Amino acid sequence: MSYNKAPSITAETINPKVKLFNYEPCGEIVMHAERLQQKLDENPGSLPFQEVKLPPALSVDILRLTSLCEHLDFVQQITHCNLGNPQVLGQRPVTFFREVLSLCDNPTLLDKDETRALFSPCAIRRARRILNSLPGKDTGGYTDSRGIKNLRQAVADGICARDGFPSKRDDIFLTDGASSAVNLMMQILIRSHEDGILCPLPEYPLYSGSIILHGGTMVPYNLTEDCGWGLEIFEVKRCLEEARSAGLTVRAMVVINPGNPTGQVLSITNQEEIVEFCRKEGLVILADEVYQENVYSENKKFHSFKKVARSLGYDETDLSIVSFHSVSMGYYGECGRRGGYMEMTGFPADVKDQIYKVASLTICPNIAGQILISLAMDPPKLGDESFELFEDEKEKIHSSFLKRAKTLEKAFSSLEGVSCNTFEGALYFFPRFHLPLGAIRAAESEGVSPDTFYAHRLLDATGIAVVPGSGFHQASGTTHIRCTILPHEGKIAAMIPRFRAFHEAFMKEFRGSEPRMTDFRR
Amino acid sequence: MSYNKAPSITAETINPKVKLFNYEPCGEIVMHAERLQQKLDENPGSLPFQEVKLPPALSVDILRLTSLCEHLDFVQQITHCNLGNPQVLGQRPVTFFREVLSLCDNPTLLDKDETRALFSPCAIRRARRILNSLPGKDTGGYTDSRGIKNLRQAVADGICARDGFPSKRDDIFLTDGASSAVNLMMQILIRSHEDGILCPLPEYPLYSGSIILHGGTMVPYNLTEDCGWGLEIFEVKRCLEEARSAGLTVRAMVVINPGNPTGQVLSITNQEEIVEFCRKEGLVILADEVYQENVYSENKKFHSFKKVARSLGYDETDLSIVSFHSVSMGYYGECGRRGGYMEMTGFPADVKDQIYKVASLTICPNIAGQILISLAMDPPKLGDESFELFEDEKEKIHSSFLKRAKTLEKAFSSLEGVSCNTFEGALYFFPRFHLPLGAIRAAESEGVSPDTFYAHRLLDATGIAVVPGSGFHQASGTTHIRCTILPHEGKIAAMIPRFRAFHEAFMKEFRGSEPRMTDFRR
Repeated sequence: MSYNKAPSITAETINPKVKLFNYEPCGEIVMHAERLQQKLDENPGSLPFQEVKLPPALSVDILRLTSLCEHLDFVQQITHCNLGNPQVLGQRPVTFFREVLSLCDNPTLLDKDETRALFSPCAIRRARRILNSLPGKDTGGYTDSRGIKNLRQAVADGICARDGFPSKRDDIFLTDGASSAVNLMMQILIRSHEDGILCPLPEYPLYSGSIILHGGTMVPYNLTEDCGWGLEIFEVKRCLEEARSAGLTVRAMVVINPGNPTGQVLSITNQEEIVEFCRKEGLVILADEVYQENVYSENKKFHSFKKVARSLGYDETDLSIVSFHSVSMGYYGECGRRGGYMEMTGFPADVKDQIYKVASLTICPNIAGQILISLAMDPPKLGDESFELFEDEKEKIHSSFLKRAKTLEKAFSSLEGVSCNTFEGALYFFPRFHLPLGAIRAAESEGVSPDTFYAHRLLDATGIAVVPGSGFHQASGTTHIRCTILPHEGKIAAMIPRFRAFHEAFMKEFRGSEPRMTDFRR
Repeated sequence: MSYNKAPSITAETINPKVKLFNYEPCGEIVMHAERLQQKLDENPGSLPFQEVKLPPALSVDILRLTSLCEHLDFVQQITHCNLGNPQVLGQRPVTFFREVLSLCDNPTLLDKDETRALFSPCAIRRARRILNSLPGKDTGGYTDSRGIKNLRQAVADGICARDGFPSKRDDIFLTDGASSAVNLMMQILIRSHEDGILCPLPEYPLYSGSIILHGGTMVPYNLTEDCGWGLEIFEVKRCLEEARSAGLTVRAMVVINPGNPTGQVLSITNQEEIVEFCRKEGLVILADEVYQENVYSENKKFHSFKKVARSLGYDETDLSIVSFHSVSMGYYGECGRRGGYMEMTGFPADVKDQIYKVASLTICPNIAGQILISLAMDPPKLGDESFELFEDEKEKIHSSFLKRAKTLEKAFSSLEGVSCNTFEGALYFFPRFHLPLGAIRAAESEGVSPDTFYAHRLLDATGIAVVPGSGFHQASGTTHIRCTILPHEGKIAAMIPRFRAFHEAFMKEFRGSEPRMTDFRR
């Protein structure tokens, strides 16, 4: 009898589409950072870098700290600038959100006297209201696969208040964060590799990953770095036409606004052009609007694509738009809860029924995420007991983001061979590095891209983890890193001198005999 | 200029695989039940059925209630026997679980004096321990895509304690319930429609749905109703060989134990045969073990497939097994939280890396679900302050399930033309209905299957919602319904006379001139 001793499933025999994509924000650099942290935990002092030791919630004057940082305590740990994961880096959650969540999880609290000393009256009222709207009046039940009716209504009302245009509950699907919603839409839209989806470059690799995994073809269009990562419609048109000539059916256009990894906020004129273009070409707009609360530029404001379309007089019969939002970003920062919604307008009822059916294969989104996204879209109002604290917390997070961004922007711009666009929104910088030819050759000889080479060297020397630009499909021949603004103000202040010292030494090492900076566009 | 006025996405132009599957537990009968409930809410008294009115957590003597039910209050509402959704039907959550969750959501509680009056000391200790193991010591951060290290360790330790064989943390992926884990595995295993997955019939339609959606081919094997829905290995072998002759590469065998919708528990001998078979044939065992805490038969016990394989002396090099578990079922009933794990053994490291990468596309499972599955696998122990209450709650749920099951089994067995197997495990009955020819013809003339016809009539007449057997791909020519044991004991007692009266009237109406029951196997 011949028994099959080898495991039946090997890397050679799995779905080949799985092997075709990479997801760098959770990829090799992060794993390397984890290995280093583990080394530090097991053997403190074994690596050549130090991080400033701060209680995570401490509020400090960043400028004062910068001048004082030699007097502070230090600890050896990794500085994570790789992932948009604010609460892991010390951002405190919004009190009202957590009070409501805590009460919904344990409704017996609602009848106890002690509860009034621990929770705000409006959190208690909100928890009662939410619990009353749940099946079985508890958080333990499966819900409608689109989410709880009343919570979807709260989201629709929030969208309407934000945009000034109606939003319908039945257009809202609550989801386990935006990522699973994007995956669901790709599953619906893509029939074969002959279906194309327009995506920006640089792009957040959820899009390329999801398109590849579902068997479609990514049709990239370039954002223009020299115009502040602006989106030029003639470039999108060129890519669409090229894809069509190659026999692709292009079904949708992904727009990330505010941009990830590029941090730009689209102008309303630009958004209008996109709406007109997608309408004319019959493309679904897949609008990644998860950074809608992260706009810092005084001259820019967030406008949803639906609002722009409605303002132009276009309705559901004119074009299809899906807007993705999430509780992970904004001032909320509730990444681990996996809460989000998609609003889909301009889709026939029978298509929505099919989307409903696919969503029902995993039965329903998690209830804590459902509750949180409803709170994000319907936060405390003037007159609510929590309102003042809520506004204060929100404002503190926003102004701290702004301070950190300005500090980082100044630092990046002052580095030799680095150009950095003005930061308008989202949570990231995507500065460009013009590295010496020596560094490019050294990277080549190690078989990695120059950005990966730089990021690994940076991590090993300073403990600062950033994501190489190639993880976001930067334009060929350019070198970027993505760096979040999320470490605590004090940590940002303390990491800048380390970053600068590393960069200067790196440039010196690789410049060698070659005095001139070389852009290696090829 | 020719503008495309029609929406660009229609039901005709979406991914055709989406249209090929059905998911009946959330399907047409549920939507019809919702319509009826809405009708009742808007216009009470408009439908011809009543439901006994009981406070959801009331404990009643089911037999006494049966004789007294004419003296009780009634209310018009749907009796949901369609979905395994216990807490929506009045089951109370486990106190310890919710205390820990509530504290983890709102860690500021941990420092307050009032908290000691509201939470058990061991819930406070556990919450502290969990929070200390989280990145940023809070529930708001993204976690490793496989879940928090310490929570995965708790799950591995729980598996080891359950089975008596080692379990490794790095074999554990925490997931948003079992459904998303099954979807993930299908995505990994299926390369094209030439890849087949063996699935039991009747089956839980997550499997057919997920296989179709990922482009594979379901290779069904029949469970034998006459042998208590037993799994006969020669039948599986026959199906495997048939599939291979047809050119399919069969990659895995799904086994649901305890069974859904069929409620059987596999004997250990049967499990050993399956292990030997899959080992010999090089098939991955996809073991749906979500009902492992739902075993009621005195002669049966739950054994994980990994335990059976290790007991036979087989290790990781001999065969690949994935075990799926979830917090939705058992005595936990935490469906809406979407918590679960998969334990994968016998997979090479580079395959697990690829699975990790696919999981990272949606970044991480939700944290509340992660915490809950760790609590389910590491509940309070003797000596913990919560232990007694925990054991009491668990025992009450178990014994109530048993009472409800016995009541339903007796009721189904006593109906004319209905045969019903002994209930051994899970949460469902799957009785067979031998309907009169008249009913079959009436169903045909309405263009529906006889089980759908019966289930709709039952719902309209009594408000009792069950799922037609065709939703689970019952054997052709047979008629079943799936009915959960989950409504409250009092409601089950009260629904039985309604069910019986309906059934008798139905049989009388359609028997007509034909005196004999007809099995319409064809």
